[in-house]
Parts: sequence; C-alpha cells; structure tokens
Amino acid sequence: MSQRSVDLNADFGEGFGAYAFGQDDALLPYVTSVNIACGFHAGDPHTMRAAVNSCIQAGVAIGAHPGLPDRLGFGRREMAITPQEAYDFVLYQVGALKAFVRTAGGQLRHVKPHGALYHMANNQAEIAHAIARAVRDLDPHMMLYAQSGSILLDIAKSHGLRTVSEVFADRTYQADGSLTPRSQPNAVLDSTEAALQQAIQMVKHGTVLTAGGREAAIMAQTICLHGDGPHAAQWAAAIRNGLEAEMVRVQAPQ
Amino acid sequence: MSQRSVDLNADFGEGFGAYAFGQDDALLPYVTSVNIACGFHAGDPHTMRAAVNSCIQAGVAIGAHPGLPDRLGFGRREMAITPQEAYDFVLYQVGALKAFVRTAGGQLRHVKPHGALYHMANNQAEIAHAIARAVRDLDPHMMLYAQSGSILLDIAKSHGLRTVSEVFADRTYQADGSLTPRSQPNAVLDSTEAALQQAIQMVKHGTVLTAGGREAAIMAQTICLHGDGPHAAQWAAAIRNGLEAEMVRVQAPQ
Amino acid sequence: MSQRSVDLNADFGEGFGAYAFGQDDALLPYVTSVNIACGFHAGDPHTMRAAVNSCIQAGVAIGAHPGLPDRLGFGRREMAITPQEAYDFVLYQVGALKAFVRTAGGQLRHVKPHGALYHMANNQAEIAHAIARAVRDLDPHMMLYAQSGSILLDIAKSHGLRTVSEVFADRTYQADGSLTPRSQPNAVLDSTEAALQQAIQMVKHGTVLTAGGREAAIMAQTICLHGDGPHAAQWAAAIRNGLEAEMVRVQAPQ
Amino acid sequence: MSQRSVDLNADFGEGFGAYAFGQDDALLPYVTSVNIACGFHAGDPHTMRAAVNSCIQAGVAIGAHPGLPDRLGFGRREMAITPQEAYDFVLYQVGALKAFVRTAGGQLRHVKPHGALYHMANNQAEIAHAIARAVRDLDPHMMLYAQSGSILLDIAKSHGLRTVSEVFADRTYQADGSLTPRSQPNAVLDSTEAALQQAIQMVKHGTVLTAGGREAAIMAQTICLHGDGPHAAQWAAAIRNGLEAEMVRVQAPQ
Repeated sequence: MSQRSVDLNADFGEGFGAYAFGQDDALLPYVTSVNIACGFHAGDPHTMRAAVNSCIQAGVAIGAHPGLPDRLGFGRREMAITPQEAYDFVLYQVGALKAFVRTAGGQLRHVKPHGALYHMANNQAEIAHAIARAVRDLDPHMMLYAQSGSILLDIAKSHGLRTVSEVFADRTYQADGSLTPRSQPNAVLDSTEAALQQAIQMVKHGTVLTAGGREAAIMAQTICLHGDGPHAAQWAAAIRNGLEAEMVRVQAPQ
Repeated sequence: MSQRSVDLNADFGEGFGAYAFGQDDALLPYVTSVNIACGFHAGDPHTMRAAVNSCIQAGVAIGAHPGLPDRLGFGRREMAITPQEAYDFVLYQVGALKAFVRTAGGQLRHVKPHGALYHMANNQAEIAHAIARAVRDLDPHMMLYAQSGSILLDIAKSHGLRTVSEVFADRTYQADGSLTPRSQPNAVLDSTEAALQQAIQMVKHGTVLTAGGREAAIMAQTICLHGDGPHAAQWAAAIRNGLEAEMVRVQAPQ
Repeated sequence: MSQRSVDLNADFGEGFGAYAFGQDDALLPYVTSVNIACGFHAGDPHTMRAAVNSCIQAGVAIGAHPGLPDRLGFGRREMAITPQEAYDFVLYQVGALKAFVRTAGGQLRHVKPHGALYHMANNQAEIAHAIARAVRDLDPHMMLYAQSGSILLDIAKSHGLRTVSEVFADRTYQADGSLTPRSQPNAVLDSTEAALQQAIQMVKHGTVLTAGGREAAIMAQTICLHGDGPHAAQWAAAIRNGLEAEMVRVQAPQ
Repeated sequence: MSQRSVDLNADFGEGFGAYAFGQDDALLPYVTSVNIACGFHAGDPHTMRAAVNSCIQAGVAIGAHPGLPDRLGFGRREMAITPQEAYDFVLYQVGALKAFVRTAGGQLRHVKPHGALYHMANNQAEIAHAIARAVRDLDPHMMLYAQSGSILLDIAKSHGLRTVSEVFADRTYQADGSLTPRSQPNAVLDSTEAALQQAIQMVKHGTVLTAGGREAAIMAQTICLHGDGPHAAQWAAAIRNGLEAEMVRVQAPQ
C-alpha cells in the first residue's frame, strides 16, 4: 500500500542582523519541521535563538541547516572545499545551533545541508561522507534530510544514520528523477494546483511525472516548502490542506 | 595556610585559515588548561578541531575562549553590545566548540571570555550576568575563568557556577588590585625572574606588590601565560619550573 | 532673509547579497542626494554598482556612506577604534565606491558617515579629524555631510572641506540643539504634518522647537529622509511637496 | 635577439588585522613590482596603507591583487561566481587600493588577480573578460599581469590593455606550457640553482624545459617571487643577483 504520511519542512531563521528574510511566522502553522540557518550562509546567534524559541512554542520539529561560509552568496555558490572542511563546517554549525535548542529545552532532530552544500552532497561522494560523518559523530540519533535519489541518502545510511527523503512540490523533475535545473524554462510549476497534484502523487503513489512524460519513482518522506515568495503562506496552506483532504497525515518524521 | 596549587592557562587555537598565531605547540608542555578560540575574534572550524585534538593528546584541560564578532580587531576593541547579544554570542561559540570537544572524546571544562569581552565583563554587570547565564544554561558544570577581583567572579557564583580566579604573572597591579593599563609605561614586568617571583608570591601568599608599593590581596587559582611573544615557551617553562621548585602543584582546576 | 533651498538626502544601497533593505526605488523621486553604503556596515560590490546606476539615471547627487566594519550590527554599535582606523576605513570605502561612480560616468560629490561612526564623529574630535582628513586626502572637492551643530562640521571646515549641515525632520531636538536620544519616549515625531512643519521651520527660519519649549538655532542644508519604514515613500513625498509648496527650492548642494 | 629585461613581482600586504603573513620587508629590496592584497582574500585598510607606503618609499611599482571574497580560504578555493560578480569584485577592490595609492602620492600601475581568481581567469573566458573590463573601465592605462599562455593575456589585449606575461621560476611546466599542478610530486623545483637556471632560460631564450623533456615557448615579462617560505628573501636575492650577473636588466614594466 502507498505511503500515507509526510513531513512538510521549510528553511528558517535565514535573516541576518538588521536583515529580514522569508516569512517564518506565516509559514509556521503549516510546516511540521524546520531547518534553521546556523550563521554561515545566513542566520546569526540572535536570529537562531529567536527561531528556536518560535519553533518550540509552535511544537515544530527542529533541524539544523548548515551552509557554506559564503554569506555574500547566501551559500548558493559552489566552493571547492575539501571533505575535511565540509566535516568541520557542519560540526561547527550544528554544534552551535544545538546549544540554542538544548538551552531552550528542545531537541535537535535532524540536519539538512543548505544550497550549494546540499547540491555538492548529491554529486560528490566524499562531501556526502563528510557531512554524514559529522552528523553521526555529533549525535547518531539525528536524522539527515537529503534529496530523493541522491547519493547522500545512501551514504548517510551506510554511516548508520536515519534518513528522510526530500522532494519538491513545485519543481519539475527530469527522466532520471533529478530536478530540472533552474536555468531551464520549465523548472518550476507555476500553479498551486499543479504543485498540489504533484505532491499528492509523490506521497500516495511514490512517483512523479517527469519532463519526458514518463513517471519516475520518488520517495516523498518530506516536502520542502519555500518561504521566500510573496504568497508563501497561502501556498503552504494549500499544499497542507490539500494533502490532508486526501487523508495524508502531515507530521514530522518519527 | 597558603594555597599550594595553581593552574597555568594559555589562549589557544587563535589562528585563522592560512594565518598562524602564537606558539601553541611550544606552550603545550607547560600549561595545564587552555582556552580555545571559537571563530569570532579568531579561530575557525578546522583550527578548532586541530587545537582540540592536540589538547586531548597532551592531556590538557580544555575551555572555550569566546570573543566579540570582530575578527579584524582580534576581539580587542570594545563594542557597544547588549547583554542579550553577549549571551547569544557566548552560547553560539561555546556550543560550536563543545561539538568538537565531545566528538573528539573530550570534555569542555571551562569558559574564559576573550579580550574586550573579558574586560567588559569586569566593568559592566549586565554583560557579566549575560556571560554567566549563557555558561550555566549550556552546562552548569562548566567553570568560568575571570580576573581576580572582578565582578564577573561574584556574578558567576551568584548563578551557581564554579569560578577560577585568574592572575597575570608579568603584568603589574594597581593599588586596588586591578591591572595597570597597557597604556602606562610600567604595565608589564620585563624580567622573567620578576614575573616568577610575582607568581610565587601570588600563589603562596595571596598577595601582589602594587605600583604604589603596598601589597594587595589577590586570588591566584590560574595564571595566564601569554603565547604570542618570541620566547613564550622559555618564559612558560621558567614560570612552571620555578613554581614547582617552590613545591607548588601545577594542575588544572578540579 | 531666510534660507530658501534645501537638499533631501537618504541612505541608499544598504542591502547585502540576497538581502534587500529599505525602499530605494520608491524614495528616488523625492530625494536630491543619496548616501550609498560601501560594503562595511551594508552594501556589497553588486549592490553598489546597481545603486550608482539607479542614481545616475535619476539624476540624483551621489555620496558615500562609509560605516564601521560591523555588518552584523549594521554599523550601529560604537566600537573603540583609533583615529587611524577611522581614517583607513573611510579611505577604503570611499575609494571603492568612487570606482563604481567614475566607471559609470558619474561624480562622487560627498561623504556622510553612517550610524555609530556618524555619532562618534559628533563626540570624539580625533575621530572627526580622521574622517575629514580621509575625505580631503582622497578628493578635496568632495563635501562632508554632518549633523547640525556637531564638531565634525567645524573640524571639516578646518581641513578646507565644504560642509553640508544635516537635520532630521521627524526627530525631536533637545535644548542644546542635539537630537533627543531614541531611548527616550518622545524622540520621534509621529505625525507627518508635525515633521513637515518642523522641516519648514528649520529651512525657512533656521530654528527648531526643542523639548523644553524654546527655539534653538539649527542650520538645515540637508534633511535626512528615512527609507526603512513601511510608508517611507509617502512620507518623503509629503515632506518634499510640502516644502515646495512653501516655495523652498529642493536641490542638491551646489 | 633575446629579451634582456624582466620584472620581479611578489604578492604583498597579505596580512590581516593581528595576523602577519609573508616577509614583505625582507623581499622589498629584490622585487621591482608588488601586488597588494585588497581586503577580500587578505589585507585590510590599515595593512593596505602600510604596504603602499613601504612600496612608495622603496620605489617599487605598485599593483592591485584582488581576490575572491573568501578570507577563510585565502582566496585559494574556486567559487562559482558569475562574470558580473567577478567584474564587481575587481572594481571594488582595485578602487579601494587606488585610494590609498593616490593619497600617498603614488600611482597604481597594474592588476594581478589572486589565487583561484587568477586560475579561473585562465580557464573561463567570461571571467577573463570581466576582469579585463573592470581594469579597463577603471583606468585603461593600468596593465594586467597574467600567466604566460593564458587566455587572460589575449582577452586583456582585446580590451586594449597592456599585458605583462608572468612566469614562475620555481614551478615546473607541462608540455603545453601550463604549470604542473601542485598536487603532482614534481610541481616545484627544489633547488635555488635550478630555479635560477629556469629563470635565465625563460628570460634570455623565451623557453622552458617541460616535464616531458621538450622545450616549450614561454614569455617571461615578469617572474613571480614567492614570499611565504622561510628563506624567501635569500631565494629572491639569488634569483635577482643571478639574473643581473647574466646581464638581464631587472626593472618594472615600462
């Protein structure tokens, strides 16, 4: 039988100092887990503490969202870092966030790499190993969120970590199950209805309609909700309500 | 009877990327505890991991050395931060270092604020409270190193923390027990022998000869050894050997 | 006879990387000069180029807005920098912006220090001298914007610089002509009408009604328009249109 | 007839805040031009001013050494920046340095990209175009230093810039005239004598003996002297004196 529960996650706490980013408060009612920026690509100690407190009050599962040390580029530019650097960057950032979570009485439940680090972990096995080792070494009970079909998922399992396979409701997929690059014209589904239908199909049937018209297998354990558009909250509400109307249970990974 | 044991501490891991700083390896045989920079005024994830590993191998007690977010100024310039910012900065940095220490199988035993943050905590009660609360909230078993006679010592105790009173072997003291500012000509003792005699007097008699010629009470639970001069290691060796020749037990705070 | 022309200035280009800030485009029709952030407290090379190009197209006079090297604090926290550091920071930032302005075919006409650096220059003569020297050394034809009544105005003149005396339409003033600190309850004029009346009085009569009920002399050569409130553009339009209705000529300093 | 003059250049001013780097003062007697770091990969306003002043006193030609915004990685890690970002980064940094040079009464004569930016300009034509355009737009009289045989040399010429072809005395070359990557065992010539002989052959005959044993054509208009080894000054002296003993004129590009 098909899978009948899914997590909805969003990136969180990505402001910095005087700069706001995204619509954290508006998204909070619709997500079941969040990935909080840790001060490298975004976030700072004050923002992290505020984000942690909001999430604990809302009862949302908290994860860390470590990125590359490139605040100017918001962690979106690939950098030629070594696996050891990836390990050290993840350990530092997750450790810092963990301090805020524990001090606030919460629990740090997962790690999801950000931006270019997330993509590098899909393509470079040594980077993926380094990230998985850092998470395991810090706390082997933490889960690792990674893209459906990515090598990071398999590598994380090989290090004994529990993994959560992530999909995107509003991105289109290629025949091999990978995301259509944003540089291509049809990379994003424009309508909320199309995104919802894709989400339902992913969760209930484990498939996605690809650019070539064929279905590809996909594992939707968590759906990433983008928080930076003008209508992010309405969009998130539509996805969540639409999934629940299909009897899908929306909850954080157990 | 007079006190007969003392800790010798040094700042550690204060390089950054391609930049070296101090003489960590040369000092390691002579210190019993170190304060490792945490990535704000100095240090970075790679440097922190390497410093932690060196200290664990050497059997030296490890503490965190959080500073102001001013890498260009090496954390030595006072900044008008709020107590809440001080709390958040300390929690972030100590949490990040703790991740490296625990992953390496060690234990983070104390916190010593760096540079301008250390001095601000001597003069601004709200900053001192914020630092003490951050340490306590993260781990109430950690000790706080603070300057002998400072309000930070008393405030840390009021939050239930164990404190370690720090003195300086090669700095001169004023009549009120405070350090002679570096801007004054006689702020530093030039000779190693004078520094050793001051250290012995501090540890064995709990007093220091002040600029005015009178003795002031001082509590020497740890002596700070500077690591950045050209002869830091020889100087440290002289202090340690000289203390041990006087039957002072040199060991980390228990 | 009373002064009959005034400049309206606003801070500009204070975004950073993925972060937006303020409402530059909306304010542009109402200001006659702007102060563009230079990459220390805010701004980055891309943002600077875009801001310069917008201002040249709009025909608005361009100035530099150098700040303290504290991006996390948006340059609003005082830091204990030396006069030499102030000189170097200003020279670096203004030089960088000048490259963008000249490359785009424009002219860099003035410098206005930002935030804590602006305030430090009002209180610390050595910092004021350092800023004035940096501006003069780089280009003695540039003007320096400084707060009405501040020592920076006099010091800049003593270095041969042309100065522009700045006032705030929506801030209240104390009996000595200084701004009421923001920490006090009545620091800001709530109504647009009150701000406009204050602006008109400042420009036409050279006086401001102070908190104590007495008038103080003030020299309004430029009025600072804040760009970061939700209604910044409407507010700016009201001030500009109101001044022009009073036959005040709104133009950049000649 | 063979070329009979050459420039000797070195990277300069690569310290940062409390961190020293290289042996600038010791190298200064032997170089005829320097590339001063501009605050991105290394350097800061104070360091830049001090470096400029030293070079003007020593009569050495001054160039800018812009790098990637990656201080932690010393600008040595490739980053996926766009050509527009490369343009903006170069314009910002060169503009900032130019302010110090002109204020000190000197002249900024050339630009040499640093580290990963230098290498990216060898391989990515769009990055090379962006760098060349930034230099030309700021001051078309500045020269561009680039690696012998690189596309950056040709592209800079296509933008009307004068170029200076750079070689390395102590690095080995591959059959196609490119540098042997540092990851390979024989990438560096160990002996000073071998480096000197390679330098002499490059300058006098325009060739270099490659790894494969064949000679490759090379244009040695400037030789890069490394400043970060323990014996950098002796090594630089040997190269300079050895070249002059062969009647090669050592001078900055005219």
